[in-house]
Amino acid sequence: MNGAESLVHTLADSGVEICFGNPGTSEMHFVAALDREPRMRGVLCLFEGVVAGAADGYARMTGKPAATLLHLGPGFANAISFLHNARKAGQPVVNIVGDHATAHAKYIQAPLTSDIMAICGGVSDWLHQTRTAGEVAGDGARCVQAARAAPGQIATLVLPADCAWSDASGPAKPLPVAPPKMVDSAVIDRIAAALKNGKKTALLMRGRCLERAGVEAAGRIAHLTGARLLHDYFTPRMTRGEGLAEVERVPYFAEDIVEALKGLEQIVLVGAPAPVTFFAYPDKPSWVTPEGCDLLTLAEGQDDAVGALVALADSLGARAPGPVMRRVVPDMPGHAALNPFSMGAIIARLMPDNAILSDDSLTAGMGLQASLKHGPLHDWMVLTGGAIGDAPPMAVGAGLACPDRKVIAVTGDGAAMYSLQALWTMARERLDVTVIVCANRTYNILNIELGRVGALNPGPKTLAMLDLHDPVLDFVKMAEGMGVEASRAETTTEFAAQFADAMQTKGPRLIEAVFNA
Amino acid sequence: MNGAESLVHTLADSGVEICFGNPGTSEMHFVAALDREPRMRGVLCLFEGVVAGAADGYARMTGKPAATLLHLGPGFANAISFLHNARKAGQPVVNIVGDHATAHAKYIQAPLTSDIMAICGGVSDWLHQTRTAGEVAGDGARCVQAARAAPGQIATLVLPADCAWSDASGPAKPLPVAPPKMVDSAVIDRIAAALKNGKKTALLMRGRCLERAGVEAAGRIAHLTGARLLHDYFTPRMTRGEGLAEVERVPYFAEDIVEALKGLEQIVLVGAPAPVTFFAYPDKPSWVTPEGCDLLTLAEGQDDAVGALVALADSLGARAPGPVMRRVVPDMPGHAALNPFSMGAIIARLMPDNAILSDDSLTAGMGLQASLKHGPLHDWMVLTGGAIGDAPPMAVGAGLACPDRKVIAVTGDGAAMYSLQALWTMARERLDVTVIVCANRTYNILNIELGRVGALNPGPKTLAMLDLHDPVLDFVKMAEGMGVEASRAETTTEFAAQFADAMQTKGPRLIEAVFNA
Repeated sequence: MNGAESLVHTLADSGVEICFGNPGTSEMHFVAALDREPRMRGVLCLFEGVVAGAADGYARMTGKPAATLLHLGPGFANAISFLHNARKAGQPVVNIVGDHATAHAKYIQAPLTSDIMAICGGVSDWLHQTRTAGEVAGDGARCVQAARAAPGQIATLVLPADCAWSDASGPAKPLPVAPPKMVDSAVIDRIAAALKNGKKTALLMRGRCLERAGVEAAGRIAHLTGARLLHDYFTPRMTRGEGLAEVERVPYFAEDIVEALKGLEQIVLVGAPAPVTFFAYPDKPSWVTPEGCDLLTLAEGQDDAVGALVALADSLGARAPGPVMRRVVPDMPGHAALNPFSMGAIIARLMPDNAILSDDSLTAGMGLQASLKHGPLHDWMVLTGGAIGDAPPMAVGAGLACPDRKVIAVTGDGAAMYSLQALWTMARERLDVTVIVCANRTYNILNIELGRVGALNPGPKTLAMLDLHDPVLDFVKMAEGMGVEASRAETTTEFAAQFADAMQTKGPRLIEAVFNA
Repeated sequence: MNGAESLVHTLADSGVEICFGNPGTSEMHFVAALDREPRMRGVLCLFEGVVAGAADGYARMTGKPAATLLHLGPGFANAISFLHNARKAGQPVVNIVGDHATAHAKYIQAPLTSDIMAICGGVSDWLHQTRTAGEVAGDGARCVQAARAAPGQIATLVLPADCAWSDASGPAKPLPVAPPKMVDSAVIDRIAAALKNGKKTALLMRGRCLERAGVEAAGRIAHLTGARLLHDYFTPRMTRGEGLAEVERVPYFAEDIVEALKGLEQIVLVGAPAPVTFFAYPDKPSWVTPEGCDLLTLAEGQDDAVGALVALADSLGARAPGPVMRRVVPDMPGHAALNPFSMGAIIARLMPDNAILSDDSLTAGMGLQASLKHGPLHDWMVLTGGAIGDAPPMAVGAGLACPDRKVIAVTGDGAAMYSLQALWTMARERLDVTVIVCANRTYNILNIELGRVGALNPGPKTLAMLDLHDPVLDFVKMAEGMGVEASRAETTTEFAAQFADAMQTKGPRLIEAVFNA
């Protein structure tokens, strides 16, 4: 057994079941080892960004780390932006980076020699370079353990090629993974008392507590105490829709956040950090907690926020579930040019129960969400780290994690160009994913931001840097070029017909939703 | 004048004439400043990899740095792999990274907050974060100075948004750039003596000395002394073809390098490092200089290798130019399925004088180059850092640098999927670039490497990780989807007709060259 085989067996023993990869020569032994481990699936992605985004989506839907297989410095570098998103989402990822053989790494003139630890270091919570083949298995077990540390970490193992191809003794035993930290009962008592103090209160939630069990407990608390339930704009995953308590989304723009939080006297943080704006703007605050509002922490990111919410609800005697969202099926919009609101209404009308929505839409999403929060029950994964274009790769991971659920990815046209290669993996793996590209033919958010940051009177060169009209991107052709059936919708009628068809059939599909606003 | 304007004027004063960018909110003031500086062109790329590759290609063809405009940590991260190539090529690049405003950076919960210096540090030769708006201009001048230090460096300026939008006093003066270091006459004398000692000798050349003046001087030396002229496989740029002395390419595979260098008793390094293999292989050496062969250094990478070659030739009294390559126009291959050799013959037959060949083809390129070295005079840019897919982005930079020359980019199908977004910028900027995607529908190099590294008896999972057949990529549709005219050639007849047409018309064009081997 060589080092690579000992690693693949160790990863499988540790519960890692899938490896998204884009390998090169220095990973050939790891790739060959996949054939010797039936518990590990290998999924080829045509760009490392897709690898990382898929691992993120897989983790969000399963709570488990996928492995990624990345090629030396440049390969890892291509994955950084979506690893950044995964890290901000608190997701576990196990990166295996095949580096030069130990004796080769000193040749800085070799094209692929890089400062591998520096390149990996900027986005890894845990980083280690294996020294000998005999240590690979143990390092692999530690890497998985690190990835699974609550809430989830980016763990990166740099594997020199000689450590992969040289003899090793065998796999290493899985290492124990600590469960999320229980919140101390004194904290529960303190928050319970605060919830009775008469102050206007909101619970700001993030992480696993936004799935069913957490939302139900929060709903009981809200019903009893009158506290508002909030989630931050870029939440990793939440379950919402029919049958669950409503959790309000904190808005995107600073002034809207201020308005939304106005009047609050205390905010209870449940796995969430204190709210701040996405960007800074001249003469506007980044810190948006209202002046004089207390910030109380029920659970930090690594804590068992679900357990804390249940304990808090029980401690308060909050037994009644309180009101839950009822499904509101929007009317079918009349025939007209498509816009984000009519698109959202059609999606909310036609999407099946228990779908997964992978969402990195920005301006288009603002229209979409108005209808969707009253939609059927679904899981919603949102861009968390600002690296746009991760909805299609995350949908790859979600589709593999949940093959029996419909996955809908919504992205912008500017964003889609960051990760379009995801379509090919959807086709190869026959994933049940419908990708909607919202084509407004501009970086629309930047046209808005231009004025907001005070860059006034933009000239033609400025506007050209934000514009996608020349030439127009044809996502139908690009999708077909990667083996994915595709169509274009410019009207509500066209979109409704195409989306209905996509929901009623299985397999990958792309709809270019054109907004000629 | 705000900080961004002071920076853009400073860059222009320092000779930076073009900015490739993919901006976000934190770069809006820089973008707006482009309209206030007529000497600076702004070019939008739809992915940061294209930004970096274009800057690399621009630098290789002009010797001057382009600016890149990159969006915080993830945006910079997407550029790292092709910046790695540029760094290995010794090219100057001025990166401007718009980061969060200074007061915002402490909020690690903001989605785009990252360890920006760590992310930039892994690939930057010079890295600085601006502290105040008043310092932006001076920092910008230093950044250009650093980029232009011989042979060329990756210089990165992190520009917090508040330093861009706040008031600044004005641009900073350009800083002096030291010319490449003259090689000491004692070194020239020592090498001249060595060239007369009767040992079997080769000159191994890299960098600007592979352009006309250097090759001519080397040709004189070779003619007088019988020394062989060599260039390493992954050379940043060389001028070759009709009328120039032949410089042999050192092969890719270790055993071929050993064969090529066999019998040499001394190697004179001219801007080149000692030769090593690309990867390490089990039981094969990485160091390929023959045992007992002396390594002598005429010029290091930062030295004036051209001046050194001229001085050496003069010192030797080597006046006669010696034999030069005569153009060999290959016969038109008979009608047959296309392969890399027939494709190379057709390209060599039909390409115009003074074209630019941007090349990151791997296995297909091995067939291509057999004919091209006897082709018309052309400049040849090669993948230098192993991050595949940079031929199309480099062609963007070359096309903007040399609008009157035909640019031909040759890439593989696996590689093309790393940077396909480059096609859109070619269409927008109406660049005279013909992209040839060599579609063998596999990562062919890996099928070869699999056996070479000793990963024998690959199973179906292994082979699937290297295969691009399911689904087949349709580059014609993908190119048309980005506004580029495209066609597919499966036979010599089809390729000849399409390539001839591409050479006779101006503008972007893609040919998918299918090898059904």
